[in-house]
Amino acid sequence: MIAADQAQRSATAPGDSTGKLFVGMDIGGTKTAAVVIDEAGNLGAETLLPTAQGNDGVLNTAEQALIALAEQTGCAVSDFTAAGIGIPGQVDSAHGIVRYAYNLSVQSLNLASLLKERTGVDIAIENDVTAAAVGAAHLMQLNGSVAYINLGTGLSAGIVVDGKPWRGAQGLAGEVGHLPVDPRNRPCPCGQRGCLETVASGSALKAYWPAGGEHPGWVLAAAVADGDADAKLAFDLLVEGAASTVRAMGVVMAPDAVVIGGGLRKIGAPLLDGIRAQLAAWEAESPFLSGFTLSQKLQVLPEGMPAATVGAALSPRV
Amino acid sequence: MIAADQAQRSATAPGDSTGKLFVGMDIGGTKTAAVVIDEAGNLGAETLLPTAQGNDGVLNTAEQALIALAEQTGCAVSDFTAAGIGIPGQVDSAHGIVRYAYNLSVQSLNLASLLKERTGVDIAIENDVTAAAVGAAHLMQLNGSVAYINLGTGLSAGIVVDGKPWRGAQGLAGEVGHLPVDPRNRPCPCGQRGCLETVASGSALKAYWPAGGEHPGWVLAAAVADGDADAKLAFDLLVEGAASTVRAMGVVMAPDAVVIGGGLRKIGAPLLDGIRAQLAAWEAESPFLSGFTLSQKLQVLPEGMPAATVGAALSPRV
Repeated sequence: MIAADQAQRSATAPGDSTGKLFVGMDIGGTKTAAVVIDEAGNLGAETLLPTAQGNDGVLNTAEQALIALAEQTGCAVSDFTAAGIGIPGQVDSAHGIVRYAYNLSVQSLNLASLLKERTGVDIAIENDVTAAAVGAAHLMQLNGSVAYINLGTGLSAGIVVDGKPWRGAQGLAGEVGHLPVDPRNRPCPCGQRGCLETVASGSALKAYWPAGGEHPGWVLAAAVADGDADAKLAFDLLVEGAASTVRAMGVVMAPDAVVIGGGLRKIGAPLLDGIRAQLAAWEAESPFLSGFTLSQKLQVLPEGMPAATVGAALSPRV
Repeated sequence: MIAADQAQRSATAPGDSTGKLFVGMDIGGTKTAAVVIDEAGNLGAETLLPTAQGNDGVLNTAEQALIALAEQTGCAVSDFTAAGIGIPGQVDSAHGIVRYAYNLSVQSLNLASLLKERTGVDIAIENDVTAAAVGAAHLMQLNGSVAYINLGTGLSAGIVVDGKPWRGAQGLAGEVGHLPVDPRNRPCPCGQRGCLETVASGSALKAYWPAGGEHPGWVLAAAVADGDADAKLAFDLLVEGAASTVRAMGVVMAPDAVVIGGGLRKIGAPLLDGIRAQLAAWEAESPFLSGFTLSQKLQVLPEGMPAATVGAALSPRV
């Protein structure tokens, strides 16, 4: 178990470690973050690179990240015992293949075997949100079943059971963002209408509040506090949609813990308080729903906690 | 593994068995069914009793069922190695307590320990739909994860993973019937509005098609075939709601198999064909949704397959 405080920064210089070294990498649409973790869970070197697009771009980025980490650690790339990579899209962990990672311009990439050919390092891959869920459960020391809801540009969830990822058939578990529930029935990029992602996501926020600019999540809370009516409406829709997402995960799987992650969580206390208040209001109307105690189970991924990379680093071992 | 054909009726007289004997019991709102199964999975004695209401009524019914099975088997009640009981409501399997079984007039009943005191038999209890899901997965030989959707008077699901029940916190997993999705927003007994149960259940069918009488599911297909417009509307709503339920379970957990069970499945081929066609239509509009292959994964619990009692009999051992 990596304690949350340890994970923030280890006092041990990574080069001092005598045990196995693992790499955890989170390949995002614009940036790739990677860290080195030893067997005891101490964080060592870390790097952040721009992500290049396409199959070759992604492979080059991952290889560059490994090289940068090896240089910082003072070892050869092939000295890493294994690397775990979280990546968007439909991930076949058993075969190391990622498909339909649209924001990386990747249709299908045999990432694990091709990166191993280049580097000599054993590679495990995981859907990025599932990896973050594993990391969050580990760092937040959550036992049992965890629903990790990623409020990012899109909306999806990762499910962890007793520390292990629940991947589902075709690696598709947790795609709650594509559950149609919203009577406004707006078209979703997935081809359906009224999906939760059309209400509770960064892309939804942009659509509902164009005045918020390129990163509406960064300025939403301030605009609401300033009395901006459009911002307030967008905020309320986001809160209701996020609460609906928690409820959907809740009634289907009855998780032991619910964690809100993703970039929009940085909206901060108003968002978490809003979701919790909406859930509590629904629970007040429904004794049945209150049995799930979702409003009490709700937590937010703490700022600065490296769930995505730590979860990826764990993936070769779970 | 009990093969499906064996489970229908064993050629072996139960008294001939020299191994352990298990009882599987399904306590329903009006009737209680129970069977004896030996270690090899052969079905022996069976009984069907009216269910008496309230804590004492339920205990008496369960005890009577055990006595009747022992008499038929030619053994003492205490000769049964263990009994598994499926029962509606919120079931705490770890402590053997059932709560909020409204259609049995039970608020809270320490069923396992009180029945063991009366009979000397070890008792395991399980939510009735979860038990049926375990039985269906076993009898239909479904590996991996199974979403078993029970279209009964109400609507709920049971989840099985590698043969074991996924109970969720407070035993509440699978309560997909109380996911609000329907824009008609009809009140649900749970206190919410527009729940899937208000569209896809026997009680919903009664509300939408009062002319169908006390058991509308029994006469619905014939009325639709006869060109009854009201019946057709109710049927279409049921099909769409059931397909929405499959989709909700699908996107959250990405199951390996989906089984339709419950009394309404007896509507027969038109229902299953209708749900499959609705899913296929949604999949045609959404390449993303088609990745879950829900329309292909959909199966119906075969007529006469004793999933509920067999699943209950397995519960002391899973």
